[in-house]
Amino acid sequence: MNDRLLEQCTAAREASRKLIRLTSGKKNEILYKMADQLYSDAEKIIHANAEDLSKAKANGMSPHMIDRLSLDEKRIKAMAEGMREVANLEDPIGRVEQMTKRPNGLLIGKKRTPFGVIGIIYEARPNVTSDAAALCFKTSNAVILRGGKEAFASNMAVISSLRKALKEYDLENAVSLIEDTSRETAKELMCANGYIDLLIPRGGAGLIQTVVSTATVPVIETGVGNCHIYAEESCDFEMAKQIIINAKTTRPSVCNAAESLVVDEAIADRFLPYLIPAFQEAGVRLLGCSKSCALGNGIIEPASEEDFGREFLGLTMSVKIVSGIDEAIEHINHYSTGHSEAIVTNDYEKAQRFLEEIDSAAVYVNASTRFTDGGEFGFGAEIGISTQKLHARGPMGLNELTTTKYIIYGNGQIR
Amino acid sequence: MNDRLLEQCTAAREASRKLIRLTSGKKNEILYKMADQLYSDAEKIIHANAEDLSKAKANGMSPHMIDRLSLDEKRIKAMAEGMREVANLEDPIGRVEQMTKRPNGLLIGKKRTPFGVIGIIYEARPNVTSDAAALCFKTSNAVILRGGKEAFASNMAVISSLRKALKEYDLENAVSLIEDTSRETAKELMCANGYIDLLIPRGGAGLIQTVVSTATVPVIETGVGNCHIYAEESCDFEMAKQIIINAKTTRPSVCNAAESLVVDEAIADRFLPYLIPAFQEAGVRLLGCSKSCALGNGIIEPASEEDFGREFLGLTMSVKIVSGIDEAIEHINHYSTGHSEAIVTNDYEKAQRFLEEIDSAAVYVNASTRFTDGGEFGFGAEIGISTQKLHARGPMGLNELTTTKYIIYGNGQIR
Repeated sequence: MNDRLLEQCTAAREASRKLIRLTSGKKNEILYKMADQLYSDAEKIIHANAEDLSKAKANGMSPHMIDRLSLDEKRIKAMAEGMREVANLEDPIGRVEQMTKRPNGLLIGKKRTPFGVIGIIYEARPNVTSDAAALCFKTSNAVILRGGKEAFASNMAVISSLRKALKEYDLENAVSLIEDTSRETAKELMCANGYIDLLIPRGGAGLIQTVVSTATVPVIETGVGNCHIYAEESCDFEMAKQIIINAKTTRPSVCNAAESLVVDEAIADRFLPYLIPAFQEAGVRLLGCSKSCALGNGIIEPASEEDFGREFLGLTMSVKIVSGIDEAIEHINHYSTGHSEAIVTNDYEKAQRFLEEIDSAAVYVNASTRFTDGGEFGFGAEIGISTQKLHARGPMGLNELTTTKYIIYGNGQIR
Repeated sequence: MNDRLLEQCTAAREASRKLIRLTSGKKNEILYKMADQLYSDAEKIIHANAEDLSKAKANGMSPHMIDRLSLDEKRIKAMAEGMREVANLEDPIGRVEQMTKRPNGLLIGKKRTPFGVIGIIYEARPNVTSDAAALCFKTSNAVILRGGKEAFASNMAVISSLRKALKEYDLENAVSLIEDTSRETAKELMCANGYIDLLIPRGGAGLIQTVVSTATVPVIETGVGNCHIYAEESCDFEMAKQIIINAKTTRPSVCNAAESLVVDEAIADRFLPYLIPAFQEAGVRLLGCSKSCALGNGIIEPASEEDFGREFLGLTMSVKIVSGIDEAIEHINHYSTGHSEAIVTNDYEKAQRFLEEIDSAAVYVNASTRFTDGGEFGFGAEIGISTQKLHARGPMGLNELTTTKYIIYGNGQIR
């Protein structure tokens, strides 16, 4: 590990020890101070952001990405407000679950505690900086952030502001940003066993793949979603259409948007013609299996094998006709990324089988996959959506940024 | 991945899909059949074990390790009985937690589900084979086992027996053993992303270190314990002595045995002389800091810096004198492996601070660290003791072999 990263990791560990001693009330007070400081530094942050934006434009960044990178007073106000909202959430730290008295008199409870030091690697969205800092601080974790190099000046300005507020409490190292955006340093962070207790990558499939295959510290995979909607033969056509169009078109670039449509053979010749005009109106391109192409009147183009596994993140959808629920479940479990899948049906038994046998973080009956979101699930905040099975699965709120330890009260017990 | 491992992984995944459809009642029936088969194959298993034992003796294996490797009728009976006990435990699979109705009418619940395929890498104890198979089967997970080469014939005989029982239900691939004990294949297993949902190493520090630094699939670290007992100045000397001697000497080779003693300076000159005769009687060698050596009458030998971080797994203990609770917490958090630590005290505030600030899986007040065990905690079964913070921390029972998914009942909701 390079000296500077080692120094940051050590400082973060020391800060994490201090964080453990803070009450929820104190943490909330500090979060409000951080939010106020951020907003009062808006001008500086916008100035730094302009620097990033001019480089990005010179490098030919797409307008969509430029928009994600841009900060203005309104967005900074929203970032500050987001920090205050996190302060207002219930604090999971310190809660003791399942406290039981054993026959030998030992009182054993499972207590929610912070991880210690969390690393977060993300791409070019500077609002993630304040967001991640707030969620980690609220759960008494120190955080080391490694943002994309495209947003470096903006991130640095945001972090300086937050650390200014933290310094008043001698806690500035609770939040830090890696100043070196090289791949080598990112790799060192991924392998900083003993220094980093948990690493969360937030970004596209490429970033997540790199982190998962490189990291030796514990990682939570987030966010790649090849989500399916399965129109089962007993479905209400209008409900199915509403759900499919909603899941595909309302925000096609997000991970809970649907990418794949699966239709029962028994209804395909009536359901696809019912659906296609709505797809055409929304500008959705369809890539289908041979059976669906035959029914698609030239509007459904032939899909390659890979298309069924693809996260299009745009107005394209794959279409697969299946013989029934067995093939539907097999197809979905084979191609899915384990994010969110939905069945539209009016058949009780098939609904239950789908819920039971689909191996994904969120499985829906008769609702859009777009609901897979911390806010929609009622968590108040979200650090990402886990598509792995260890520790956290689905939308992750504050609780998922905590671990537990057993606390045991005895009076001299020996074994 | 080599062809044979790929074949096993694929077969295990198929079996895992079948396991999801079994009721608890059916799983228990099959577990009983497996136990019966194991016991009726005792002769064959003992024969295979004799082969392993003769090789082990020829290779000069230590008597202690020979004992761990040995099987006789009594031990096989105990293995079968262990499987029946697992059958009798409550099944966590299918339980729905925190089901809530959202304002939009969606009914969202968190359902306990299997991981899918679990890999377990372990050393030369053939009883782990039936034990791990039973715990994974009970939780509807398929399991791929990779045992030590020293126990290969024994493991193979145990697995053949279990698979014979499973075959009657067309489920033989729910449990399999890797027949090739090369390091290359072990490494392939550790990096079988998409095939292995969770990998658990069970064994010594060397094995666990190798797995953690090599694996790209999700891993739960188990079992290395440099456990501390801290005799705080207000402690009852007799209680402290009982706890220390119990934690150090009752089974020094296990991970919850104490390895390090921490003593407050204010009592060290009275407490150490009070304690030393009991250590001498038990044959415990003491390696201490300079202050403790000065008080040790030549019985405490000088410790090196590394000794404070060592898991001796035998009748040796390090001794550190500290100025008070601040230094004690700092020392323990620095050298501990995060397994189990205890304070012996009669000071309310210091007891609470110790519970709060010690960063370990199990933190005790006035009790022996030897209680960190699934059975002692009331879990009925244990797959290992996690010393990491992701997913599971401390003794892992059936619940820790499961993950969750969100199930959502809607009636046409779109966002």
